[in-house]
Amino acid sequence: MSGQQRRDLDEMLRHAPLDVGGDVAEARAVFHEMMTSIPLPPDVTTTPGQLGSIPVVTVDTPESDAADVLLYFHGGAYAIGSAADAAGLAADVSRRCSARAVCVDYRLAPENPFPAAVDDAVAAYGALLDQGIPSDRIAFVGESAGGGLTVATLVALRDASLARPSSATVFSPWADLTVSGASATGKAHLDPALTPQALRTRARDYLGRAAGPEPLASPVFADLTGLPPLLIQVGSHEILLDDAVRLASRAAEHDVHVELQVWPQVPHVFQSFAVMLDEADEALRSAAAFVRAHWATTKSPNEAAPVSSLPS
Amino acid sequence: MSGQQRRDLDEMLRHAPLDVGGDVAEARAVFHEMMTSIPLPPDVTTTPGQLGSIPVVTVDTPESDAADVLLYFHGGAYAIGSAADAAGLAADVSRRCSARAVCVDYRLAPENPFPAAVDDAVAAYGALLDQGIPSDRIAFVGESAGGGLTVATLVALRDASLARPSSATVFSPWADLTVSGASATGKAHLDPALTPQALRTRARDYLGRAAGPEPLASPVFADLTGLPPLLIQVGSHEILLDDAVRLASRAAEHDVHVELQVWPQVPHVFQSFAVMLDEADEALRSAAAFVRAHWATTKSPNEAAPVSSLPS
Repeated sequence: MSGQQRRDLDEMLRHAPLDVGGDVAEARAVFHEMMTSIPLPPDVTTTPGQLGSIPVVTVDTPESDAADVLLYFHGGAYAIGSAADAAGLAADVSRRCSARAVCVDYRLAPENPFPAAVDDAVAAYGALLDQGIPSDRIAFVGESAGGGLTVATLVALRDASLARPSSATVFSPWADLTVSGASATGKAHLDPALTPQALRTRARDYLGRAAGPEPLASPVFADLTGLPPLLIQVGSHEILLDDAVRLASRAAEHDVHVELQVWPQVPHVFQSFAVMLDEADEALRSAAAFVRAHWATTKSPNEAAPVSSLPS
Repeated sequence: MSGQQRRDLDEMLRHAPLDVGGDVAEARAVFHEMMTSIPLPPDVTTTPGQLGSIPVVTVDTPESDAADVLLYFHGGAYAIGSAADAAGLAADVSRRCSARAVCVDYRLAPENPFPAAVDDAVAAYGALLDQGIPSDRIAFVGESAGGGLTVATLVALRDASLARPSSATVFSPWADLTVSGASATGKAHLDPALTPQALRTRARDYLGRAAGPEPLASPVFADLTGLPPLLIQVGSHEILLDDAVRLASRAAEHDVHVELQVWPQVPHVFQSFAVMLDEADEALRSAAAFVRAHWATTKSPNEAAPVSSLPS
């Protein structure tokens, strides 16, 4: 973990052409360009397809076992990005987990505002179960808006009494669309990738007529009781730092097994930069260990006694 | 991780004779009785001694390598407990870390109020360095008040420009002597071990004439910049849950590598109960992995560039 690596990445991101809060069509094109500028490793295969009615891209590596599935939710502030754009990081995670990744092309705002993304995520998971993949061999992974969507989807699944996946891992989740965390301003000068203004623009696109603190759009405000084990990773040079911290706090309050890992002086979804940043490699190793550990013991947390049965 | 194990432990703690907020002499005797009721494993040796002028108990197991030292800070609300009382858990941790544990008998309140405990902790660490143990082969471990003391000591060491240890691990830290976390009331009905009233009594004993939000007594209010990697473990059935969460939040804000691990439905310093609780074993394995990982790479974080050198 060298300071030089972090400075190089910070510099690179500050000069990136992406304007997250700008024109949507242009931002999508620039984001696609950025995410696909590094070719996938030659041993990675990506297969477009559908899960039920939801378009997906399945990502396999030679290490992948199709019996274990990461349901992967890409980032892009609910308005940008795609399953294909996420294939690079999804492949890295899935290889380390010896699993297949299925990246969900949930519908984007502003064309399809909330709750379209949550509906699509729930439908994709349901279709995976319908294919006969046991819930305890499925783990959710999400980055940025996809991290918030991951948690929102878990809440929706719980409310629908569907079997929960074995675990969920989120990288720099955007979990508060009211952009009200202290880090939204406190870390703004250090964040090379995101601004509060950009997030507020995209939040308006996604929320449409929904209220700001809508729990299924901003899961920091949701009841998280009954969620599966949750790993939250974040950098300290992020305006979204407090989204991660508050999500962990909320999960802890609601009796969720939760781990929060904060890496200092690294930016939003730093896991994407494993080729140039030691912290990314370390975080991904830790994430894979978490996913694997909860595959191994996935039945136990489900058998946990409800709180109310404890003596009071 | 079975619900029955958690219910049994909860029941046991609810019937324990300890009154943390009661008469100090009686509480010390009862705590000693409780902590030593389970004999140490026959292969553990405990050796009373001194680090400089500070009394300590050195704990070794056959797996211990004396070149690696855990400086261990016991719990007991700053008024109760001793190095010897902590030997059982210290031995368990040290065995898993293949290290020697040195448990510090810092002075207790009310006889010796703040900052006596911090002074003793700093002095013990200084004496360890004077013995020639490199800082990067020392890790701090603390439980409850000893967890808060661990972090306070790191702050004091930083302020004194002393070399920091390789990492710090705290179990259920008491890090806010103003007892102002939401969980102080929100989790009171679920916590089988501690009450806000008891903590407030002991806080008055320890703080003496110091103000409530004194950072070296309540490190949730301290500047944590420059601290070594920090692992915080806590149960969700604790009034101190928010001390752990806020400590993690503060450390993250201040660019510390921090990990927070929350186990659902387990009580204060559940790691003490590895004989009867799967979560304790899992948490201790995780703690040992953390300590070992930072021994292995301890030099790198110290070489991290200061925040101010990053482009802004």
